[in-house]
Amino acid sequence: MRIEQFVELSEGEWKSMRSGHSLAFQQFEQVVSKIKINSISPNNPEVLEILNSTNNVGCNLVSPFRINWQAESDWDSNETSQVSNGVCILIPIPISSTSGKMLRSVGYAEEINATSNYCFLSDGTLTLTTNYDQTIAEERIWFVSNNVRCRSSVIRTLQGSGILQTSYASEIRKLKA
Amino acid sequence: MRIEQFVELSEGEWKSMRSGHSLAFQQFEQVVSKIKINSISPNNPEVLEILNSTNNVGCNLVSPFRINWQAESDWDSNETSQVSNGVCILIPIPISSTSGKMLRSVGYAEEINATSNYCFLSDGTLTLTTNYDQTIAEERIWFVSNNVRCRSSVIRTLQGSGILQTSYASEIRKLKA
Repeated sequence: MRIEQFVELSEGEWKSMRSGHSLAFQQFEQVVSKIKINSISPNNPEVLEILNSTNNVGCNLVSPFRINWQAESDWDSNETSQVSNGVCILIPIPISSTSGKMLRSVGYAEEINATSNYCFLSDGTLTLTTNYDQTIAEERIWFVSNNVRCRSSVIRTLQGSGILQTSYASEIRKLKA
Repeated sequence: MRIEQFVELSEGEWKSMRSGHSLAFQQFEQVVSKIKINSISPNNPEVLEILNSTNNVGCNLVSPFRINWQAESDWDSNETSQVSNGVCILIPIPISSTSGKMLRSVGYAEEINATSNYCFLSDGTLTLTTNYDQTIAEERIWFVSNNVRCRSSVIRTLQGSGILQTSYASEIRKLKA
């Protein structure tokens, strides 16, 4: 699996069912989201801005893409649901055919610009590792059919190997009417 | 990763947080379980019985083990919790250093004797594929630390590629007092 192929397979609209596991407190969280994944031009102004601010101008990027998401969580002190949404630009910069780095306009575990390292496992599973200020996020994404992909994450503390939480999402492609 | 090493790392008592995703109905299930994993002797009478009933007497088995589990689910029409428990004997029979078959006294998706094919991915993730009468179960298990492992599954219909449900468990080792 190459990153450009993975991005192509991921393009479209997805409905996501996501479960979060807080290990210390043994708490479950459930979130239903809509996710849109779209390729964007390497010359998109936002792409150029990220390349510029991270000193990556002139790098050999491939298949930059945008993720829009809208989430509805059940986890709220008032037991009413929370709605949140966001957008993230991702820019893969391959180092080999199966690995590289990925620039992100917004991080997964902390809301700052972030650079992930990605690597494909032998079965085409994409793994992403991102170091933040306080935490390390490890994600893996794999297709179980053309229209269903799974995504898991582990958040661990930067100091020591404490694991704060894990999550898992089943993402189902919204088929065109 | 070799299967005997994987079994050794898995031995002990685990507390499991498991989330099930029913894709067609967009329903979540949450289950908290206790799991005990113990090596057993290749000469254990139950092992010999499984080898006998599956015509595998004389095969090159390694590291047979027993899983005991006790689960408490929230998924019940009366909204009271259900408690269930069970036991399963598993017998790995390697074909190569990274793959083989695994005999099971009780299947994962259907409660009958089952034979899985197992294979390790490049990062040591164990994948298991089991064909049942009506369904195919695909599981993957990976360690994120010595004391936390993750387990995901996908159940698909044997006819066509319909995916019925997925699940994900975070398993935390119960440390000795």
